[in-house]
Amino acid sequence: MLDIAIIGAGPAGLSAAINGATRNKSVMVFGNKPTSSLIYKAEQVNNYLGMYGVSGKEMIEQYVDHATNMGVDIHLGKVIQIFSMGDYYTLNIENEFFDAKTVIIATGLPMVKMLPKEEEFIGKGVSYCATCDGMLYKNKDVIVFGETQEAEKDVNYLSEICRNVHYVHKYKEVKNINKTVNLINGKPKEIIAGDYVEGLRVKEHELKGNAVFLLRETTPMSKLISGLEMNGKTIKVNRNMETNLPGLYAAGDCTGTPYQISKAVGEGLIAALSAVTYIDRQKAA
Amino acid sequence: MLDIAIIGAGPAGLSAAINGATRNKSVMVFGNKPTSSLIYKAEQVNNYLGMYGVSGKEMIEQYVDHATNMGVDIHLGKVIQIFSMGDYYTLNIENEFFDAKTVIIATGLPMVKMLPKEEEFIGKGVSYCATCDGMLYKNKDVIVFGETQEAEKDVNYLSEICRNVHYVHKYKEVKNINKTVNLINGKPKEIIAGDYVEGLRVKEHELKGNAVFLLRETTPMSKLISGLEMNGKTIKVNRNMETNLPGLYAAGDCTGTPYQISKAVGEGLIAALSAVTYIDRQKAA
Repeated sequence: MLDIAIIGAGPAGLSAAINGATRNKSVMVFGNKPTSSLIYKAEQVNNYLGMYGVSGKEMIEQYVDHATNMGVDIHLGKVIQIFSMGDYYTLNIENEFFDAKTVIIATGLPMVKMLPKEEEFIGKGVSYCATCDGMLYKNKDVIVFGETQEAEKDVNYLSEICRNVHYVHKYKEVKNINKTVNLINGKPKEIIAGDYVEGLRVKEHELKGNAVFLLRETTPMSKLISGLEMNGKTIKVNRNMETNLPGLYAAGDCTGTPYQISKAVGEGLIAALSAVTYIDRQKAA
Repeated sequence: MLDIAIIGAGPAGLSAAINGATRNKSVMVFGNKPTSSLIYKAEQVNNYLGMYGVSGKEMIEQYVDHATNMGVDIHLGKVIQIFSMGDYYTLNIENEFFDAKTVIIATGLPMVKMLPKEEEFIGKGVSYCATCDGMLYKNKDVIVFGETQEAEKDVNYLSEICRNVHYVHKYKEVKNINKTVNLINGKPKEIIAGDYVEGLRVKEHELKGNAVFLLRETTPMSKLISGLEMNGKTIKVNRNMETNLPGLYAAGDCTGTPYQISKAVGEGLIAALSAVTYIDRQKAA
């Protein structure tokens, strides 16, 4: 059982991690490679106090070095869902399961929007996880939408078990996809569905399939954990970074503007200290 | 007229300054030497993301270098009072006056407590500024309480114009005080007063005097600006670091726990961006 599970390996998540570690709590960070962060591509970042004239690459490297030096583990993988288990939480990380006394959500910028019919067809053909749901569509036709090259391993996995796989890729250069996969460069317009998913509309195409796998960089927040109170697209928090769910905190861009590193780092710290206080109070009770 | 006046040269103040400067606003920081910060004495600071294993001295030096590199001026001096002038503010910095469209208070940890009778005798013999009020006590007897050697220049000034000066110093080593001054090492217990101040009780002494100058490292927040809404000893702010007064923001330890660098730096950024938004909105109006 982890003391603190942190979702997101950006500035907010890593700041939460080093502060949890400082307070002698067991922490684990779940997320994408920190080098996939948008900051990594920044030519120069000048407004994080103490690090003047650094490139985004240098900044991220220093952040990761800091966390690594303090013994923080970064577990690569996407969080599919968080389950509240009463006095602890269980995280589904691409079908590996982790228990934690507290959770800090630091997933970055909120997802822009869901597709028409996406929400109502979750579990009826709309999926966010090839590893979790792929076998349900063995020998059937599926469509995958991928935002980054990260999705390609899942596309290849599906191409081994499914009959036909259409891969709709938002990014330009496809790197390593099995030859049997049908490639379309573009963005989905809407889910096609009757009682169940029947396909996906992309540009002028109507792709047919029994399932649509949406492999975005982030899962829609409202799907990540049920009962989480939102403020529009951002997670509602108070000044202690507490959400409406006990033991669950949020920090960084997912709590709203300004979308800035210093804010994220500060909120990560506060969320970690709130989690520490909560854990110690539970122990005392 | 400054765009943003920042009170306090610690992590919150400097973070506000670099972010104001980044947004092309004229900023000035008013405060003590950054090397007088408590952080400066820390052997090691490990929980500010990106700077692992640095000493407090190195950290403060990197902070100041960063601000200096971005053209930020640090004006040494204590803020005596802030006056609201309608749509701008005037700051009294030891009797030099500065106008600013917005003010960010980043004065650090709130003062622990006021002395018995201190509050009710402000203006009746209790003063926080030798330069401002010294001449009122020409040829009279005064008592000065100083927390650091910084106070000594004011003690010497008063010793030139007043009849008798008692100097109560909280710190151990007095460095450079005129010989005519009566020295007492200790802390005040209470103000002695009838209709006006008559003296100060320190240990077993009852020092007589017409005025008591309290030269602490910080002025009591509630005296700094009238009408500022507090939360006990800390300044009440919302998540945009707005106080109840338009154009006036607060950041860092003075807004409450946790008393941590990352929180201060994050709040400094947010306060600066809120000030920038406010200035631009005023300009557009």
